[in-house]
Amino acid sequence: MNIAYLRPPRGLRDYPPEIWGRIKYLGESFLELASLWGYREVEAPALEKLEILEKKAGPNVRDEIYWFKDKGGRELGLIFDYTVPLARYIAANPSLPKPIKWCYFGRVWRYDEPQAGRWREFWQFGVELIGSDKVDADAEVIALMVKCLEKVGVPEPKLMVCDRRLVMSALDTMGIDKSIRYEVLRVIDKKKKISPEEFRDMLAKLGLEGKADDISEFSSTLVPFNEAYEAASNYDNNIAVFFRELSEILNEYGVIEKVFLDCSIVRGLDYYTGLVFEAFCSGGDRLSRLAIGGGGRYDELIGLYRKPGVPATGFALGVDRIAMALTSREMNKVNIVNLYYMDKSFRGYAIMVAEQLRRNKIPVVLDFYSKSIRDSLKQADKRGYRFQIIIGRKEFGENKVTLKDLVEKTQETLTIEEAITRIRST
Amino acid sequence: MNIAYLRPPRGLRDYPPEIWGRIKYLGESFLELASLWGYREVEAPALEKLEILEKKAGPNVRDEIYWFKDKGGRELGLIFDYTVPLARYIAANPSLPKPIKWCYFGRVWRYDEPQAGRWREFWQFGVELIGSDKVDADAEVIALMVKCLEKVGVPEPKLMVCDRRLVMSALDTMGIDKSIRYEVLRVIDKKKKISPEEFRDMLAKLGLEGKADDISEFSSTLVPFNEAYEAASNYDNNIAVFFRELSEILNEYGVIEKVFLDCSIVRGLDYYTGLVFEAFCSGGDRLSRLAIGGGGRYDELIGLYRKPGVPATGFALGVDRIAMALTSREMNKVNIVNLYYMDKSFRGYAIMVAEQLRRNKIPVVLDFYSKSIRDSLKQADKRGYRFQIIIGRKEFGENKVTLKDLVEKTQETLTIEEAITRIRST
Repeated sequence: MNIAYLRPPRGLRDYPPEIWGRIKYLGESFLELASLWGYREVEAPALEKLEILEKKAGPNVRDEIYWFKDKGGRELGLIFDYTVPLARYIAANPSLPKPIKWCYFGRVWRYDEPQAGRWREFWQFGVELIGSDKVDADAEVIALMVKCLEKVGVPEPKLMVCDRRLVMSALDTMGIDKSIRYEVLRVIDKKKKISPEEFRDMLAKLGLEGKADDISEFSSTLVPFNEAYEAASNYDNNIAVFFRELSEILNEYGVIEKVFLDCSIVRGLDYYTGLVFEAFCSGGDRLSRLAIGGGGRYDELIGLYRKPGVPATGFALGVDRIAMALTSREMNKVNIVNLYYMDKSFRGYAIMVAEQLRRNKIPVVLDFYSKSIRDSLKQADKRGYRFQIIIGRKEFGENKVTLKDLVEKTQETLTIEEAITRIRST
Repeated sequence: MNIAYLRPPRGLRDYPPEIWGRIKYLGESFLELASLWGYREVEAPALEKLEILEKKAGPNVRDEIYWFKDKGGRELGLIFDYTVPLARYIAANPSLPKPIKWCYFGRVWRYDEPQAGRWREFWQFGVELIGSDKVDADAEVIALMVKCLEKVGVPEPKLMVCDRRLVMSALDTMGIDKSIRYEVLRVIDKKKKISPEEFRDMLAKLGLEGKADDISEFSSTLVPFNEAYEAASNYDNNIAVFFRELSEILNEYGVIEKVFLDCSIVRGLDYYTGLVFEAFCSGGDRLSRLAIGGGGRYDELIGLYRKPGVPATGFALGVDRIAMALTSREMNKVNIVNLYYMDKSFRGYAIMVAEQLRRNKIPVVLDFYSKSIRDSLKQADKRGYRFQIIIGRKEFGENKVTLKDLVEKTQETLTIEEAITRIRST
């Protein structure tokens, strides 16, 4: 039987409990941390007007997202990030007290070519800090990003930071014409993924053979962030001073050792106006080259929708990629009780026991489907449940239960209270 | 300035923290309860192949959902419930150990005409119990549904239950031709929303003038579920016996007083094969007429995708509608600390204090944007934060903080540990 049609649509995947459990665990861990920093959780509608998406991303966005006309002829697109719908909402509600501190965990869609670990539907956690242009705001989102990655145990997280204004100054210093700036940025953005020869070739196509060495030297700058002041002062003194202050605050947050100045980070041709950064982790070759998150300052995005604009900064983490990056720990038995009763006449008692366990926050599966104790134990084992409770005539008569711990391989007949204590102490 | 374009697409809405907080709180409360019953959380891709959606819902589904062709020419639709993608996954993975107990909280999309409280994108929580045809499975999902509604404080939840097999038997007894059965079901499904005259007219159009009294009498059956045995035995003795056993188990779960036999419940023209039910609550006139959730047994759905089929039952709750049904409680001040430092030289100390509070699970907003204490207090008040911490020269010098409780109107200068204890004791 051909069951190809039972697969999800191309580029999408299913989320059974083992896969979903990891994504959700990460997302909720990040949300919990962000809430302690005063960020409040929001959601966004999955669909936006195409003209809203184009305002930010340009008309080419049609090639890169899912879009269609609804039955009323409106052009709609599935959101490709949360920054756009949140910026639109903030533009529409100018009286919201600033700064706004919001966080989210949800999914977005992009019509990319599917690859291992890249899905057309994927999960993002992120924060937006809207309404402050201070270096303190940049420092806060960087520190929070590092702490998010540390919290869930990402191996050796590194934050690569640069500033769009520094790159622009450097290109000016080299005498590169403003008209081809964005083409040059695009080449720099690719630098890590291509060979030095390809890099030179791409610059040559822009008529910049003579500047290739300068551009290469600048974009190869990579130093611990507490040396960013010196490195930047060759190109732009204002940014150097800004970096020095940022570095001081990151030191106060205790995250400075994780942060580097990396002048190849420009974040594509996006809406960023100042600081930009990407997060990486150690691990497999492929993974350590893939950014697991990124962000930056986007002071002009909200103004695209409605004047006056509002300065803003934020980041997003790729939750699926982080799930891949974390060493898959040995699946432990899940702390669920499989409860089997040997005769229908014990059913009322079994339901009462289950309710009492649940009131004590112990997950219970009421096994009304197995035909024998043996069968029920086999089910518990197959599903990875840690505990089995059996209720037979003796247990029913004495108001007790027989509790098996399938890890410790113990078995005891206990009162319900004793069983609860035993299960909770494991 | 025309800002109509800054609204979300027609029929959709934004989710700022106050709105999203209520939806998320409900969804997570339901998930927590379901996990105690051994249901494991899953997600589903937002997009399905249109042919998968049509298998269940028929070609008319195109009029009722968002669908489009992707860039590869594939016809895709946004999911309108979770039952279809989960049934598809289970059909594709026949070796999963049965019964499967899954729950979910997420959003689905329908292209309805927007009305107050009805959105084209809305949030569902639900459970599916797949692989058992026993009355115990029906009883478990009904009991769990009632307990979900009770847990979050839905006012006087009521569960209206019927059985498709009983309705079919009753129509047979009345001598109604099998060929128009589904048309008659459709009329019964509308009964509560139309007048008795409209009801008779619709039946007359089916040539059933002579049976209108019988059909009306049957579908007006409404009794507490512990009397369902007697009421059903007039029409079908097997179902009467099934109801008696169901009633016994619901009694053992302690939910029987919330459950009623209501023979007008048939759940549209869906995939249900046995028990069907809908939940209602007391409250405003409009709300008490709107179902806040529904479910039933769908033994033939999975078999539509791949043989052999698998028996299944489950329910879904309309989380947005439940949010509406809950009396909006007086918004309390949120337990967030607004932390203001009076000079940049105290910044490092302020960050250290914030980190210490966060380690103790106290949410802190670091206020680096206000120009004065007065300003900072105004911000805290406007946002509904309960606490204000001020760090000035004296506090910095003595390793202390000044803590204001904006509800109790108190102010004290305390060590950090004392401040933590004070905040946590409120």
